[in-house]
Formats: sequence, structure tokens, C-alpha cells
Amino acid sequence: MSSSIQSASTSLKAPDSSQLQLNSQGQLRHFLTTEGLSKALLTDIMDVTESFSSVADKAIKKVPLLRGKTIVNLFFENSTRTRTTFDLAAKRLSADVINLNIATSAATKGESILDTIRNLEAMQADMFVIRHAASGAAHFIASHVAPHVSVINAGDGQHAHPTQAMLDMFTIRQVKKDFSQLKVAIIGDILHSRVARSQIHALKTLGAKEIRVIAPNTLLPSTPSALGVSAYTDLVEGINDVDVVIMLRLQRERMSGALLPSESEYFNCFGLTEKKLAHAKTDVIVMHPGPINRGIEMDAAVADGPHSVILQQVTNGIATRMAIMALTLGQHPSSKAL
Amino acid sequence: MSSSIQSASTSLKAPDSSQLQLNSQGQLRHFLTTEGLSKALLTDIMDVTESFSSVADKAIKKVPLLRGKTIVNLFFENSTRTRTTFDLAAKRLSADVINLNIATSAATKGESILDTIRNLEAMQADMFVIRHAASGAAHFIASHVAPHVSVINAGDGQHAHPTQAMLDMFTIRQVKKDFSQLKVAIIGDILHSRVARSQIHALKTLGAKEIRVIAPNTLLPSTPSALGVSAYTDLVEGINDVDVVIMLRLQRERMSGALLPSESEYFNCFGLTEKKLAHAKTDVIVMHPGPINRGIEMDAAVADGPHSVILQQVTNGIATRMAIMALTLGQHPSSKAL
Amino acid sequence: MSSSIQSASTSLKAPDSSQLQLNSQGQLRHFLTTEGLSKALLTDIMDVTESFSSVADKAIKKVPLLRGKTIVNLFFENSTRTRTTFDLAAKRLSADVINLNIATSAATKGESILDTIRNLEAMQADMFVIRHAASGAAHFIASHVAPHVSVINAGDGQHAHPTQAMLDMFTIRQVKKDFSQLKVAIIGDILHSRVARSQIHALKTLGAKEIRVIAPNTLLPSTPSALGVSAYTDLVEGINDVDVVIMLRLQRERMSGALLPSESEYFNCFGLTEKKLAHAKTDVIVMHPGPINRGIEMDAAVADGPHSVILQQVTNGIATRMAIMALTLGQHPSSKAL
Repeated sequence: MSSSIQSASTSLKAPDSSQLQLNSQGQLRHFLTTEGLSKALLTDIMDVTESFSSVADKAIKKVPLLRGKTIVNLFFENSTRTRTTFDLAAKRLSADVINLNIATSAATKGESILDTIRNLEAMQADMFVIRHAASGAAHFIASHVAPHVSVINAGDGQHAHPTQAMLDMFTIRQVKKDFSQLKVAIIGDILHSRVARSQIHALKTLGAKEIRVIAPNTLLPSTPSALGVSAYTDLVEGINDVDVVIMLRLQRERMSGALLPSESEYFNCFGLTEKKLAHAKTDVIVMHPGPINRGIEMDAAVADGPHSVILQQVTNGIATRMAIMALTLGQHPSSKAL
Repeated sequence: MSSSIQSASTSLKAPDSSQLQLNSQGQLRHFLTTEGLSKALLTDIMDVTESFSSVADKAIKKVPLLRGKTIVNLFFENSTRTRTTFDLAAKRLSADVINLNIATSAATKGESILDTIRNLEAMQADMFVIRHAASGAAHFIASHVAPHVSVINAGDGQHAHPTQAMLDMFTIRQVKKDFSQLKVAIIGDILHSRVARSQIHALKTLGAKEIRVIAPNTLLPSTPSALGVSAYTDLVEGINDVDVVIMLRLQRERMSGALLPSESEYFNCFGLTEKKLAHAKTDVIVMHPGPINRGIEMDAAVADGPHSVILQQVTNGIATRMAIMALTLGQHPSSKAL
Repeated sequence: MSSSIQSASTSLKAPDSSQLQLNSQGQLRHFLTTEGLSKALLTDIMDVTESFSSVADKAIKKVPLLRGKTIVNLFFENSTRTRTTFDLAAKRLSADVINLNIATSAATKGESILDTIRNLEAMQADMFVIRHAASGAAHFIASHVAPHVSVINAGDGQHAHPTQAMLDMFTIRQVKKDFSQLKVAIIGDILHSRVARSQIHALKTLGAKEIRVIAPNTLLPSTPSALGVSAYTDLVEGINDVDVVIMLRLQRERMSGALLPSESEYFNCFGLTEKKLAHAKTDVIVMHPGPINRGIEMDAAVADGPHSVILQQVTNGIATRMAIMALTLGQHPSSKAL
């Protein structure tokens, strides 16, 4: 990996992307983090997502909004699942897609990350969808691309995963309509989670009433109050009376370290069961970014139960990515015929 | 692999897919096996294949029949060759295609096969093309998909490979016109062959006069008569007076086991040469699903000789897969302008 | 690898492709080498490239010239970078593209190269883009394909890389307009370079005034005069007064052999710096096929400096490949509306 990113990762634990993300008219140009974006802009993303949701129900699931555009999925960290959602979103917008898994290609010839970007730009790429194990990678690339090129962060280290957060926000809005009365609990490895970080920023901007994080002490952020959340180490206490439960995926590699005792002990304390869920509101919804570790993060009965909106999240993931792709490329569908 | 499939594979040696494959109007919804499908339906598949054959000859080899549909090639067992034919067939129908090699993706994150299916359905996939090493895998998936989703079996364990069988039937019909007077010999590892199994079902339904299987004793089914075929261990005797010779591909891994002595001894007894072929009818056709092991299953002189229709089979493979994709998705081209 | 190619490679160090490349009307049918093609034909390729250059500037970077055509990228040697340029060029011409990395597919089933070709032809492939480690591979394949199929050489062993040479010629023409007064220096591993070989043939045909090759003695061709070039072992002397400097990529594996002393010693003698470049004409352009080994072939200051046209080469690579694809398939855009 490029040493420039390494240093970016070190110096910019939370790079300030708020200015970088908008053009001079205040419109979305890159999508790197939910942090610092206005409520109006997050709402607009959800409104456009809404309009694309209906595309999926049509017999012909395609709109010509990005025809002739070239979108490059530049995955430095493998994720077939996330790449597939961007691939499908781009195809439904009629764009041409190039999938590049960098670990197995140019890097073996010693090309630096910026050389790769410069070359793909010279081939008239219009957008890079970046997945990288280093925090700040998408920010670093966005700060170096040509004026007409947009960057979407598909997950960078432990920093941000903003498209996941926005599909979660859209799903919450679909069911709950309004954020202002919502109590939301996020359960799992809060400390290392880019998903949690992006969700917290979005929930705060959208005006959620209360945000709780629930985890063993070793996986809680050191200063939750600085994030504007309250921390719990007791699951039942934490989900008491909440409207939304968001489970995080547990990285199994944490299990072999000193941070967690064992899978079964984790499940006993922090795994979600129907019994524990009964402490939440009766109309609580349960979310998970997938793929689920059944029997570790939650019981199958919860994952497949009446409160689960997990597959609805997957469906919304396509429309959300279509919306963000269209908006960053300046193609607001409100001004076009779908 | 999922234990559900393991048990499906054990309990459903030949799962009864006859009802599962048809919708309430008797139209093809999934395509899992040739077994149990009516002569009228197999004939309709061949008629539609015929209409798509002409597409390939046009300057622009594309029809818009499946525009906006999303087809997922879900290959749990690697086969570039078969995947390419489905990929091309889908593209010529203007569908969007996602190629997923599951051995190297979600499975590494421990996602179960049904979770994978549920997620892809939530992304509005319209069709799964399944290749799997376990018999019954496609049947298992078809019995769990959403009402609007179709499943095509691209080869499951030793059970079935019905699209291969249909392209073979179409090729036979192209040359021989009528099945009722045909004597057909299938040569090779009958016991383990999903191709042979699917061919035998189709040939019987289409009314072939006589079906023979030719193999060493160790590779013959235990009760050939139950399959409605007659068994031969002598190649010359078996191909005497036949109209069609179908060679199977020999899995070389069998050679290292106890089932077969050596490649050269196999070729001596069961390899097809011009001399042996002279015992068949003078207008016999020779078929092979590819890729050929020249010098093991047959001489190069036979593979490339005047009786061979092997490349014609490859060509027909695209049109056959187009036909089956269109039919299972309810897009009968007779009601559309090509 | 097929023994037929091995022998082709041995016997045809420089296979005579001049007749094979043209059809009976003298039009381009395959594109295997720049050797033996007329000045008029190379000029036509550059003119068509010019017309495609403007496509990339449009909001919708697509022309329907090859709609319904099937292009197979058949890479026996991995090169994500080169494959991506052909993939993009084909998509911008609206063709369907199949990417096959043969090292990891059919070859593992023992299929010979000609069987692979025959099968893909039977699937109605219209074009093969061939990358292969053996010299003569593309020529061998072109001499065996069906009449309607075209072959493009995307690099074969140490023989030729003609699309790279043509994008270089186009880039030179863009800047320098006329070849007749040009002094061109090619620097690096001339002996083993397919790029240099193709460039030299094209430059001679287009009438360049003087072609110099600069390298350590171990990497110079044995009889430069037979190639029509003059050889230098001193960089400063060699680039004195030249209009164009073409750097070659140094294969690092050469470093471990006896041919080169060390990376730092190579850079001292043959690495391009601003100081050395000052010996060339003041309006000299610096080219490199990429990816660059900064600090070995040239300083970063040169690679990114005012004389560099390296990214312009990348941009022109797409239009050049579009032009060659369209021309070999008989779709001259002058007779069509873009």
C-alpha cells in the first residue's frame, strides 16, 4: 500500500471531508462520509432513493441516467457482496462498469495507488468506488482526482461506510417515517466499526432522539459522550424501550485476540434473542448489515423473525447506491424522466 | 456447504422436480431436470431454440427480450466454459449478468447458501443459474426462491445437466429430424454422468427407438433396465447400426482410482476410432459435450471428422440456453417481435 | 502451452503477417504487427483514432458501431491494465465482452488452444484479443480462425505489441504533426521488447528521420543496422537533439540475471533525469508505455514533468483500440454517423 495513504491514515483518523464532498454550489460531488453533511442533503439522498425504489419493481429495471458513464469499482479489500451491490446499481443506471481487484493486478507490478488512479482517469473513468483497508483511503483519492471525477467510499478501514449508513437511514425512514422521536441502539464492536461511526453521524444529523451503543467494555469507544451517544455494557438495559436495534457484524478474527472471551460467551451476553428483544418497544425493528453470523450476533429466530428488516436493507442498498451515484455525477433524477 | 443440501443430496438422489418446474398453467418456471417434462414441452424448447438460432447469424446478435432482467450465474463449482455460454446467452437477450464464483467469495465469510440466495433476491435478481458439486442443489434452491424468481440447473453433482441434454436433443433433431426411428449409443462413464442421465430422460420422452449405454462394468449403472436402456461392455457390439453416438467426457480423476485400469487400456477398449465407428450407420453423427480428451475418449480423426457434430453442439448451446432463459422468465418469443 | 505455438515461435521469430493481416480488398482484417503495413493504412488508423477521440469528450461516451458483436479478451498472460483498455474500448463501441483468463480456466482441463478457439468461434465470437507469452501466438491463431473472425495482438512474447505502437504513433502525431523531420530515441531493454520492435516498424513506415536505440550492450539488438536504427550505449549522446524520447519498461526480473548489474547502477547510466533530458530538443516529448518504475527508468520529476505525454498516451490507448477494433471488423466510422 502507498505510504501516502499510510500517513493519511495516521494523521487523519477522521479526515475532514465535509468541504471536499460538496462542489461550489453545495451539491454532492464525492460521498466519503456522512459526517458534516446537512440534514437537507441526507434527506435529498433518501428522497432520490425513494424514486429509484420503484425502478426495481418495473418489468425493465433500468434507467438511462448514467448511459455512457464509466464506473470503476476499485476494491483494494475483497468484498464480493458490496461490490455486487455497486455493480448492480451502476448497471441499472445503464453505466459501463469495470471491476478491478487491485490486490491481484497492478499492485503486483508495483504501480502506486495514485498512478493507478491517474491511468484510469486518463481512460475517462467518471467515478471510482473505493474499498480499502486503510482509513482515509477514499478521502486521499478524492483529494487527488480530476475535477470531473467523483469518488464513493465503499468502506475505508475503521473510518466510514457511508452508503451502508444511508441505506440504513432510508430503511428506518421507510418504517418509522420520522427520526425525531426515535431511540436507536447499536450493538456490537462499536470501537472498530466503520458502519457504526457512519450511522451515528447520520442519526445525529437527522435528529434521532437518543443513540445508545451496547458492547463489552473492550469494544466500546473510550469517550462515547464525545460522539453524542450513551454507552451500555448490559444488553437488556441498553435495548429497553428502543425503536430500532442495529446489530453489527462481529469480525471473527477479534475472537482469537484478547478483546473477546469466546463465541458462546459473547452470544450469552450480547447475542440478540427474542427474549431479550422483548425489552424493546413492541414495534421495534432489527437491522444488520450482513452477512449475519447466526448464533453469534443473533438467533436465527430474530434474524428471520417479524421484527427483522434485514432483507429490506439489502433491497434498499441498490436504490441507495443508485441515488448516490446519480447525485455525485450531477444527474438528479427530479430533472429527468424516469 | 450447507448441511441442508447435504441431506437433500442424500435423501433426494433423484429429487422429484416435475411439479416444481412448472407453474400452475403448466408453463416452465424452473429448469432443473429433463425428467418428467412432457414431449410437448421439450419440443417447444427446441422450437424456441430454432427461432434463436437465427439471431446468431444476424449482424447484430441481440434481442431485447430480457432487457432490465438481472441474471446471476452462481457457480459453486468452477466451469469457465459453461459459465461463458450462459453469460453469452444472457447478454444476447440483453439481460444484465452478475457472475459469482461462490467458492472464493461469500462462503469465506461463512454465509450459508440460503442467505446468499435471500440476499441476491432482495437485490431483485430474476434468475439463478446454479452449478454445484452436490446432487439436488438446484432443486433445493428452486424450492426456496421467491415466486418471481427462476432457477436453471447448470449441472448438479451426478444428478442432472438438463441444458446440455437439450442442446444435444436439438442438435440431433437438426440432423435427424425425427426421433422415432433412432438408435442412440452413449459411451463412457454412465454411472457417474449427470449428462447421460439427463440425455436418457429426454431421449425416452422424445420417443427414441433404442437407447444403449456402453462402458466397462465398473462404470455401468447397476440396473440399466430400470432406466429403460440396454447395456453393453463391448463397444463394437454396442454401436452396431446406431444413428447417434454420444461420447461422455472421462473424468481423469477416475483413472487414479480402482474403477479404471489406465488411459491407454481405456482407449483400446472404449476409445472411438474411425475403424470402430464403421460399425455404426453410414450417416451416424458423433457427439461430445466437450472439452474432449483426444486420444482417450476418441481419436482426433473422429473428433474432427465428417461424422462429428461437436462444434454444432457448441453453437446450439447458446441458442438452447437463450430459449430456456426466455421461457422460464415467461418471455415466449412467439408472442414478441424478434 | 500448445506445441504448435512453441514451434511457430521457434520457426517464425518474425512471422510474416503482412498478407494475413489484410483481406483481398487490402483492408485490415487482423492486427498482429505493424511490420509490413503501408503508410496509408497506418495513417488511416490514426485518422479513425482521431474521430474516436472526440467520443471520449462527449457526455455519453458510446457509439453503437459494434452493437451485437461479441469480443473475447483471451489473455494467456495476465495484464489487468491492457485488458481494461480493450474492455473499455469494446464497451464504448457497444460490443459484448467476454474476459477469459486462460491460465485459470480451460487449460486446467487440458483443452488445447485451438480447441478453445474453435469452441468460442462456435459460440459466434467475432473477435479475439490475444495476449500470450509466446512470440507468434496471435499469428498462429489468426491463421486458423474462421473467415468472419478477427484477431488483435495485445502482446505476444518478445515479438510485437502493435496497438501500443499505434497509440504511441498517434500521440506523436498529435504533438509533432509530421514524422519526416523527427529524431526519436528509444531507451531501455531494446533486445527483449515487443513494444520497441513494433514502434520501430511503425516509425520507419511513417518516415521518421532518425531512430536511435539506447541501452547497455547486453540489451541492444545484435545488428541494429538491420533494423534501420542506430545504437548508443551512452544516454546523453543518444538523446542529443532528439524530438521524442520513448522509455521502455524495465522487467525487474532481468535484474536478477546476468544482463544487468543493479537497479541503482541502471538508473545512474540509463535512468532519465531532467538534467540528462536537457540534451534533447527543448520541445522534446517523453513517452512510456506504463506502468513506470519511478527511480529506475526515470525520475518522478520527468514522469510528471512538462515534457511528459504519458497520460495522454493512456487516453489515446482507448481511442486507438476502438479504431483498430472497428476497422478489423469492417466498420469504418467514416461511412457511419457517430
